[in-house]
Amino acid sequence: MKNIIENINKAFESRVRLGIMSILLVNHEVDFNELKDRLDLTDGNLASHISALEKLEYIIVYKEFVGKKTKTTYKVSTLGKKEFNEHLKALEKLISKK
Amino acid sequence: MKNIIENINKAFESRVRLGIMSILLVNHEVDFNELKDRLDLTDGNLASHISALEKLEYIIVYKEFVGKKTKTTYKVSTLGKKEFNEHLKALEKLISKK
Repeated sequence: MKNIIENINKAFESRVRLGIMSILLVNHEVDFNELKDRLDLTDGNLASHISALEKLEYIIVYKEFVGKKTKTTYKVSTLGKKEFNEHLKALEKLISKK
Repeated sequence: MKNIIENINKAFESRVRLGIMSILLVNHEVDFNELKDRLDLTDGNLASHISALEKLEYIIVYKEFVGKKTKTTYKVSTLGKKEFNEHLKALEKLISKK
């Protein structure tokens, strides 16, 4: 028998990561400060979760020059989209069983 | 502006805790081994999450004698029910925004 939580992806357990993925799925491209403001996080907290999601290849980091400054933006990857959708399906299943 | 994750309760972030709470909400009273089997966990892993939920007073632990053995069962508390339902609402909101 499959247990009810095995399709819940541990990489998305934290609410910060749920928030990052949700925002990136709705918005094509988001920068660091926008994520920080919308999720009301400190730099360090956001950076560590972004780095974890990047290592898993769930999000892709783009760095570009805007004038003399670098601008860093984030997009969700195809893999990230797939994994996050499966995670949401597992959550929905768990919620609907209640 | 309220951010999209602030109503997600950190106490329920872990999938193990989501699983424990879901099972306890549907079943009136569940014992340790049943939770362990249904969530496919080790004793230590389950015990640590139960202990955290008990400290928060989200679940109540009952110990009773069955013959010469003690039997430990768990129930969700009124507070636990309330908090978990709010957590699920916050998750549903996040999911539906996607």
